[in-house]
Amino acid sequence: MAGDVHDLTSESVTEAVLAQIATTPDARMREVLSAAVRHAHDFAREVRLTPAEWLAAIRFLTEVGHACTPIRQEFILLSDTFGLSALVEIMHNERAAAGGTQSSLLGPFFREGAPELPAGACIVKNRTAPEIVVWGRVTDVDGAPLAGATVGAWQTDENGLYDLQVEGGAEMDMRGTFRTDGQGRYHFRTVRPLGYSIPMDGPVGRLVHAQGRHGFRPSHIHMLVGAPGHRELVTALYFGDDAHIASDTVFGVSRSLVVGIAENDPAAPIQGIGSVRYDFKLAKASGGDGGRVGADPAAFGKAAE
Amino acid sequence: MAGDVHDLTSESVTEAVLAQIATTPDARMREVLSAAVRHAHDFAREVRLTPAEWLAAIRFLTEVGHACTPIRQEFILLSDTFGLSALVEIMHNERAAAGGTQSSLLGPFFREGAPELPAGACIVKNRTAPEIVVWGRVTDVDGAPLAGATVGAWQTDENGLYDLQVEGGAEMDMRGTFRTDGQGRYHFRTVRPLGYSIPMDGPVGRLVHAQGRHGFRPSHIHMLVGAPGHRELVTALYFGDDAHIASDTVFGVSRSLVVGIAENDPAAPIQGIGSVRYDFKLAKASGGDGGRVGADPAAFGKAAE
Repeated sequence: MAGDVHDLTSESVTEAVLAQIATTPDARMREVLSAAVRHAHDFAREVRLTPAEWLAAIRFLTEVGHACTPIRQEFILLSDTFGLSALVEIMHNERAAAGGTQSSLLGPFFREGAPELPAGACIVKNRTAPEIVVWGRVTDVDGAPLAGATVGAWQTDENGLYDLQVEGGAEMDMRGTFRTDGQGRYHFRTVRPLGYSIPMDGPVGRLVHAQGRHGFRPSHIHMLVGAPGHRELVTALYFGDDAHIASDTVFGVSRSLVVGIAENDPAAPIQGIGSVRYDFKLAKASGGDGGRVGADPAAFGKAAE
Repeated sequence: MAGDVHDLTSESVTEAVLAQIATTPDARMREVLSAAVRHAHDFAREVRLTPAEWLAAIRFLTEVGHACTPIRQEFILLSDTFGLSALVEIMHNERAAAGGTQSSLLGPFFREGAPELPAGACIVKNRTAPEIVVWGRVTDVDGAPLAGATVGAWQTDENGLYDLQVEGGAEMDMRGTFRTDGQGRYHFRTVRPLGYSIPMDGPVGRLVHAQGRHGFRPSHIHMLVGAPGHRELVTALYFGDDAHIASDTVFGVSRSLVVGIAENDPAAPIQGIGSVRYDFKLAKASGGDGGRVGADPAAFGKAAE
């Protein structure tokens, strides 16, 4: 009665799983899940994963799940520290953004609904560090200015904390969205953010610590730039003099995104304070190039308490 | 100042991650994490994972984490339905159990502390189906009887539910541990369990459904057999006439573990009821062969509520 039952081996079990997944009606889901099974099994076979290690992984993933709350996305942090977010972001950019500004990670601190502010406004409510002005233009890949483009910025304060990490993020701060003028120009004031450690008090932080990694991101300002008919750009500007500029723990830094503060740039729209100039180039929109590698953590539903 | 910062590509990002992981002090952790990164990146590159798909995966894993409670381990269920648990179990058995009984999955319904019962006792408190007797011997791989071996059994009731799924599992039922006599013999009474669907009301169940899989496990009795100086055996006995015997949704069935109910076996220790005979063979213990592919879900800490 068990004529069609076979003794599974560490090789044949993979074929058995793929045979069951072959019934998946959605072709892309079938492709992705089948590949996930093959690679997961190859991984387990390559390292000869033991029951104790498997159990440690189950325990770890459970802790990561329980650490996810409406203001914290620990799975994104895990993906970030494994370079998987960066890889997906880079592939996304390679797919359709030729000639556009290099992208970078959205990260786990992005929030929907940041206030739209007038040109030149400061995005930081309480400042204990000198202001700087960030300015430049948004153009298409040929350099033609894009008027009315949205330029969103979000960052840590001068102590390395996002609003979400201060008093549970009840108030939005260090975030703002601006619009370019008729010549595609934007500018806003802020303070230089401090580089910071990813949250080290959770399971992902403990894993990063166990790897002997410092867990720091270099100082940066996140940017989200969009214009009708053009591909949304998720990127960030990195301060080149940060000690961790070449060892970002989440692999977001690219050379073309490194900036410095000019002290006396006569072209800056506000004089007497430091300035950072960056011009963004947006590729034309094409089919199927939407989507962000990240989201507002509130979009992931209720937390474990 | 950014002289050592490079623009990452979808190929070079993997090397950047491996370079950071190279500082991991523990050699085995370094090996396992490095392999995990390589295979995860290979997977993402092979399928050209999109931001939307990546985000769906983050969302899914978060839901799986939030579904984990002290009486439910959704990550083990995920591993089970991907055949990863079976693979780790098979490798564990291949490593050191030559000549011993084939292993099978511990599954997500194992509980520590099942009552030790006298030989012949029934593990089911309220019976609405005919009793059967499960009996046989525990020996070493050469057939020498092992006296005082522990034989643990757990199963669903005749409706396909574990005690954990009835009233939150407040009371232990359909579980018991027995000891072999001087000749290595064991026997206990139970009812024939019903095959059952894995929990389909959570994220893993929804994924299995989306794959067009039935989600059923064939009728089986879990067994945990141990004796001093011998390797613990985690296995299960599967009823060969079950409709899902060849398509177990968690890949636990091996041919050598398939049993049937004999109606009139004169050798059975209790007459007048159906009987299932199974002899277990335990391999000698060796270094580093411990560990179970699974655990009592209560061992994974507090739940998301």
